[in-house]
Amino acid sequence: MIHPTHPTPLAPPTPPLPAAAASPPPVPRRVLVRDLAQHVGRTVTVAGWVNTLRLQRAMQFVLVRDHTGTAQLTHRRGGPADPIEAELDALTVESAVRITGTVVANPVVRLHGVEIVPERVEVLARAEGPLPVDERSGIEHRLDWRFLDLRRRPAGALLLAVQSTVEAAMRSFAHAEGCTELHTPKLMGSASESGAEVFRLDYFDRSAYLAQSPQFYKQMAIAAGVDRVFEVGPVFRAEPSFTSRHATEFTGVDVELAWTTGVEEVMDFEERMLAHTLAAVAERHGEEIREQFGVTVTVPQLPFPRLTMAQAQKILRARGWDPGGEKVDLDPEGERALAAYVREQSGHEFVLVTDYPASIRPFYHQRRGEQPEVTASFDLLWKGLEITTGAQREHRHDVLLRQAAEKGMATGPIEDYLNCFRYGCPPHGGFGLGLGRVVMVLLGLPSLREATFLFRGPNRLTP
Amino acid sequence: MIHPTHPTPLAPPTPPLPAAAASPPPVPRRVLVRDLAQHVGRTVTVAGWVNTLRLQRAMQFVLVRDHTGTAQLTHRRGGPADPIEAELDALTVESAVRITGTVVANPVVRLHGVEIVPERVEVLARAEGPLPVDERSGIEHRLDWRFLDLRRRPAGALLLAVQSTVEAAMRSFAHAEGCTELHTPKLMGSASESGAEVFRLDYFDRSAYLAQSPQFYKQMAIAAGVDRVFEVGPVFRAEPSFTSRHATEFTGVDVELAWTTGVEEVMDFEERMLAHTLAAVAERHGEEIREQFGVTVTVPQLPFPRLTMAQAQKILRARGWDPGGEKVDLDPEGERALAAYVREQSGHEFVLVTDYPASIRPFYHQRRGEQPEVTASFDLLWKGLEITTGAQREHRHDVLLRQAAEKGMATGPIEDYLNCFRYGCPPHGGFGLGLGRVVMVLLGLPSLREATFLFRGPNRLTP
Repeated sequence: MIHPTHPTPLAPPTPPLPAAAASPPPVPRRVLVRDLAQHVGRTVTVAGWVNTLRLQRAMQFVLVRDHTGTAQLTHRRGGPADPIEAELDALTVESAVRITGTVVANPVVRLHGVEIVPERVEVLARAEGPLPVDERSGIEHRLDWRFLDLRRRPAGALLLAVQSTVEAAMRSFAHAEGCTELHTPKLMGSASESGAEVFRLDYFDRSAYLAQSPQFYKQMAIAAGVDRVFEVGPVFRAEPSFTSRHATEFTGVDVELAWTTGVEEVMDFEERMLAHTLAAVAERHGEEIREQFGVTVTVPQLPFPRLTMAQAQKILRARGWDPGGEKVDLDPEGERALAAYVREQSGHEFVLVTDYPASIRPFYHQRRGEQPEVTASFDLLWKGLEITTGAQREHRHDVLLRQAAEKGMATGPIEDYLNCFRYGCPPHGGFGLGLGRVVMVLLGLPSLREATFLFRGPNRLTP
Repeated sequence: MIHPTHPTPLAPPTPPLPAAAASPPPVPRRVLVRDLAQHVGRTVTVAGWVNTLRLQRAMQFVLVRDHTGTAQLTHRRGGPADPIEAELDALTVESAVRITGTVVANPVVRLHGVEIVPERVEVLARAEGPLPVDERSGIEHRLDWRFLDLRRRPAGALLLAVQSTVEAAMRSFAHAEGCTELHTPKLMGSASESGAEVFRLDYFDRSAYLAQSPQFYKQMAIAAGVDRVFEVGPVFRAEPSFTSRHATEFTGVDVELAWTTGVEEVMDFEERMLAHTLAAVAERHGEEIREQFGVTVTVPQLPFPRLTMAQAQKILRARGWDPGGEKVDLDPEGERALAAYVREQSGHEFVLVTDYPASIRPFYHQRRGEQPEVTASFDLLWKGLEITTGAQREHRHDVLLRQAAEKGMATGPIEDYLNCFRYGCPPHGGFGLGLGRVVMVLLGLPSLREATFLFRGPNRLTP
C-alpha cells in the first residue's frame, strides 16, 4: 500500500533511540466469526457480545456476536471444579467477551456449521441487566438508548454501513468528475441567508451564527478558482419543526460546478451521481437491504423525468390536488401525488421539478432570461420526498444586488458574499442533498430519527 | 459507471411526460487550457479569467487562465470597425470570460506552444479595478479577500488540491481497513469534556453546546457495535488562542477502533495511514509542491520512532531544555527540540511520544496496568508540531467512574456517555488528527491561517 516515491533522506532502518515502554502482555489476534469455518481443528480467539445464553443442565450454549456474525460456544458442564462452567454461568447478555477455544465442525449448528469449545473465557466489560431497551420499546426510548438500539438489531449496523456506502459512492463519483473536497466554515460572523432559522452563539465578546448550509462558502470557493466543489458536512437549522423529515442538524452533501451553461448541467450531474450511488448500494447491500428492510434497491434510468412547476401544478390540479387558492409551491401532499403520477406514467421513482417561481426561491437563484419570473432551479423528489434543491446561481454582481433588493434584503450581513461577485465570478450552479433523507427513502424508514446515527431535533439534544 | 443490478420494474425508456421548459441557447463545450495543443487548427471555446493584458499598438495579447493552465490570445488590431479589438481593449484583469477562436501552433509561445486567434469574446462577469489584494498584501488583508488571494496565486489552487488528496488518501486507507464513515452530532445538550473551551448557543428555550471533538460520540458508535469508525468534520474550540497553530474551528479527522488490545495498535494504524497518505500526495503533487512551496514530500519509514514521555524529558533536559521546574508536558520549544533530536538520530520527521502522565490526560484515557500513574496514550509530532493525540480508552464502567472522580468531574453532564459503558462496551482506542495542521506541516506553511480555506480564530469570523 506504501509506495515511497521520494527517498527518506537520512533514514537508517532502525533508529538508535531508547527502547519504548514495556509492551502489554500479548493478546492473541482475534478471528472474525465469518471466518471461523476456515479454522476447524485450530485454537482461535473470538471477541464479541453475548447474544444469547442457553444454560442447560448438562450443556451450556452461548451465542457470541461480532460485527460479522454469530458463533455458538458449546461447553459440557464439568462440575464444581470446572472454571469454564462457572464463567459461563456468570455471563450476562450483551457483555463484551473474549473467548479462546477450539473450532469444531458440527453440521447441526446453523451458524456456519461450526461451534467453539471454549478453553478460556474473559469478560472484558460486564453488561448490567436487564437491558433498558428492546424491540418493543417506543422510538423516543430507543433514541435515548440509541447505542443499544443499533447494536442489538441487525438492521442497525446495516443502516450505518449503507450510509457510509452512499457517501463513499457519491464522493467517488464527484472525485472522478473533477471535484475538490472542501470544508467550509460552520461559524459565521453574521446571519446570512435568513435570520429566522439561524442558531446564534456566544463568541467571546460577541455573537456568531451557525451556517444553515455551505451555500455562500461553496460559491466563494468557485470565486476562489476551484473548478468543482464537493463537501459533506453538518448543516444547522433552527426550525421548530417536528415532522418526520426535519432535523436541527443533519449531514448535507453539497456540490457546486463552475462555468456551467445552465441548470441542466447541474441536474445531469446529480442524476448520474445518484444512479452511480444506487448501483453501488445495490451491489454491496442489495440482498441484505431486502432481508432487513423489505426494500428492493432500484438503479434509476437516465435521464430522470422532468416537469416544470407550472406543468406539475396543472397535472396535480387536474387530479384533484387543491391546496387552497393560488399556491405556487408544492406541499408534502402535492409532492406525494406528483410522485404517484410519475410512477404511473413512467415507473420512475424520481422526478425533477424545474422552473420554480422566483417568489419562492432565494435571491441568488438565476432567473430564466426569457421568463424572468421563473428561476433556473429545481427540486428533486424521490418517492415523493424532496431530497435536493439546486439551481444555476446568479453570478453577475449588479443583477444579484437587484435581486437581493427585490427580496427586501439588507446587503450589510452578506457583504463578504456579494464581494465575491465584484472581481469576475464565473457562471456556476450546484445543489445540496440531505444524506439522512436519502438513507430514509432508500431504506423505507418512517422518519429521519431512524435514519440518523444520533438524531437532533428541537426536543432532542441527547444522547 | 452505472451497473443496474436490479431491474427497474416498470420503466419504459421514454416516459410519456410533458416536454420540459425551453432549453437555453446552446453554448459550445469548453476546452480546458491543458488540452489546447490537441486542437490545433480547430475552433474551440475556452473559459477562464483574464490573467494579463498586453495591449500593444498593432497587436493585442491577452493571457486567459483556467484551473488547468494559461493560454495566450493573439489579435492583430483591425481598426475602428473591429469588434474584437474593442472587446479586448475593454477587458479588465480577473474578468471571467468565454473566448471562441482558432487554435494556432506557435512554437514561440511558451504556453503549450499554441495561441488562440479570437473570433468571439464574451465577458461573463466583469472584474472591477484595481484588485483589492496582491502579492504584497499582509496576511490579514489577504484573508479578508481570501477568494482572490487563492485564485490569483498558483499555490492557492494547489493548497486546496493537496488538502483534498490528503483527506481522500486517509479515507481510502480507513475504508480498506474496515472503517465505517460516520457523522456525529456537533450540537450537544451539555458541555462535556471541559466547560471552559466550549461554545454555548441559544437552542430554542435553552442552551446547547458545540462539540469540541467527536470523542464521546465516536466511542458511542463503538458501543453501538461499529467495528471501526472514521469521521471527518468540524471541531469547535472556544480558546482565545492566537498562535500559528490554533483555530476556533478546524477540520478533524477521527478514527476509533474496537477490540484493540492496546494503544500500540492505534499507533500502528495511524503511522500506516500517514505513510499511505504521503505516498499519495508525493505521487500526485510532489513535483508541484517542490515548485510552489520548495518542500520535498518524504514518505516516512515504518515504524515511526517512539519515545515515552519520561525518555523524552530525560533526553531534552540533558540537551539543555529547561521549561522551569517539574513540567510534565512538552511545550512547543520542547516539541521542536525533540524533533531535532530524532531527526539527528534517525533522520525521521515523525516521533510518537507515549506514556503521558495521567495528570495531564483526560479521565477516559486508559492507565497502564503495571504503572497506573501513566496512560496508554500518545501524541504524534511531525517536524516538531503536534498533529495528533491518541489513546487506548478506558472501557470499564467502574474504572471510568473512578477516574472521572479523581479528576473532580461531575458525572451529570456526561451521563449519556457513561451509560455507554454499562452494557458491555468493548476495549477500544483511537486518535484525532487536525487536517489543517497536517497540510501546514506538509507544505511548510507558517500558520493555519494559510493552510485553511477560510480560517476561523477569536478575531476572525469573516469572510
